[in-house]
Amino acid sequence: MDFKVRILGSSSALPTSERFPTAQTVLYNNVPYLIDCAEGTQVQLRKYKVPFGRLKNIFISHLHGDHIYGIFGLLSSFNLLGRKQALNIYAPEKLKEIYETVLNLNNDVLKYKINFYPLNNKSKNKIFENRYLEVYSFPLIHSKEVYGFLFQEKQKDRNVIKSKIADYNLSVKQILELKKGKNITLDNKPIKNQDLTIDPDKPRSYAFCTDTLPLDNLDKYIKGVNLLYHEATFGSELESLSKQTFHSTAGQAAEIAKIVKADKLIIGHFSSRYKSVEPLLSEAKRVFQNTIEATD
Amino acid sequence: MDFKVRILGSSSALPTSERFPTAQTVLYNNVPYLIDCAEGTQVQLRKYKVPFGRLKNIFISHLHGDHIYGIFGLLSSFNLLGRKQALNIYAPEKLKEIYETVLNLNNDVLKYKINFYPLNNKSKNKIFENRYLEVYSFPLIHSKEVYGFLFQEKQKDRNVIKSKIADYNLSVKQILELKKGKNITLDNKPIKNQDLTIDPDKPRSYAFCTDTLPLDNLDKYIKGVNLLYHEATFGSELESLSKQTFHSTAGQAAEIAKIVKADKLIIGHFSSRYKSVEPLLSEAKRVFQNTIEATD
Repeated sequence: MDFKVRILGSSSALPTSERFPTAQTVLYNNVPYLIDCAEGTQVQLRKYKVPFGRLKNIFISHLHGDHIYGIFGLLSSFNLLGRKQALNIYAPEKLKEIYETVLNLNNDVLKYKINFYPLNNKSKNKIFENRYLEVYSFPLIHSKEVYGFLFQEKQKDRNVIKSKIADYNLSVKQILELKKGKNITLDNKPIKNQDLTIDPDKPRSYAFCTDTLPLDNLDKYIKGVNLLYHEATFGSELESLSKQTFHSTAGQAAEIAKIVKADKLIIGHFSSRYKSVEPLLSEAKRVFQNTIEATD
Repeated sequence: MDFKVRILGSSSALPTSERFPTAQTVLYNNVPYLIDCAEGTQVQLRKYKVPFGRLKNIFISHLHGDHIYGIFGLLSSFNLLGRKQALNIYAPEKLKEIYETVLNLNNDVLKYKINFYPLNNKSKNKIFENRYLEVYSFPLIHSKEVYGFLFQEKQKDRNVIKSKIADYNLSVKQILELKKGKNITLDNKPIKNQDLTIDPDKPRSYAFCTDTLPLDNLDKYIKGVNLLYHEATFGSELESLSKQTFHSTAGQAAEIAKIVKADKLIIGHFSSRYKSVEPLLSEAKRVFQNTIEATD
């Protein structure tokens, strides 16, 4: 099952000619989930051939323009494309008022339904679930109410060893029980699950953290996450500006990756003052080696 | 004096990976004037190195999302960049309510002034003027109140022939009079202006017409325009859809160029259904040879 993250925008508030402001898709099992929706998101979605029609869930971290000003165009375009299918939006409450006001002023009447799920939990909260995947929101700290998101694959079934199916002439019912980790009985003889099965792949996870002060309590929410995206708006030389604007430095992002025991860190939301983000990457790598930079 | 048009977006409502929705700059004497401001305009402005800081005047044709959804991000970015200088916006009245509402909901307090000039004239109307240039609005016909814009260079002074300045030992005052087309008197002898001067360059002009039905009365407003941008959303095979949606076909755009006696036509605002706009270009060229296609 594919589980990919596509960065659609990696700049902070001011876009550059190379980097759009924040938006990402998580592609799981060929279904895209959109995180944040900055100006230009619909163009980026097309450019990177994200399957538009299969997009059903949008997660918005907070209501700063550089994370939401693409929502109007995207909602309008869905309409022009004849969308009938409902769209789910998970976002701070006021977003609904913002897009409804703009669409109304523009006389844009949507022909599809939006299910709006306001985010307001003060701790980790499951906001989405399907057969394979769960999405949680958790609070971050910025100049505005803000949430991080954790995409967590569900625990998979155990894998029944193929040769054993024939050897023991297993029934479908027995296979299903084995997949769930149960022991079975064959010819009145109990057989241990682990003799017939192997461990499934470890569930994979992705956490998105922007915009935020560095929070050393994040291990409460995302401990052991496989891939962590953490904002790194500034380098350590601007630590006081970073603190003042409720952002994180590259080094601080890397410290968080260490604290939550992430496998890999991806830094982004770079200030447009950095023509090259190499210094930010080096700063992070000194603390957490397995770090890469986000590029659109 | 340079007088250039830069297309920032040439698609119609649905952008493609190649074409952003509508925005253009007219660069006159190295000062940019922005026409329409679709989603992504600020990124395009950066990409094409349009001098951001010198942008003082924005002209908005009508209030469809694909012409205005970049205004929020642009106004915010000016703020982040520390703009102090006032910004002039010429647009249908309701735009003010739209951007003020969004910026307020987003708690974005602008630190510079916006002078808002509502467009509402039913005929050609001068809306901007400086030493060299005049901008006029004129009504078009679409599903929404819409205006075209004419950028018209002012009549230039006559050129005094350099050698004559020495020959006749002309004073500054006399030179200024000659530039204005007056005759002068030298040693009590009247001298005709045309003996000392040559004609100035013909004033240049650019007209922007989108979104609109083809209007054969446009020669009232833009007769003899040098460069005409006219929307050509569809080809003639979709003429009835074009009419129904208040747009023009490529052939109709070319007819208008003929009627107004334009020197050159540039067609744009292409429907995203055209992977190549070559058929639209050919259709227009059959009617008006000097046609080019808009590309971002």
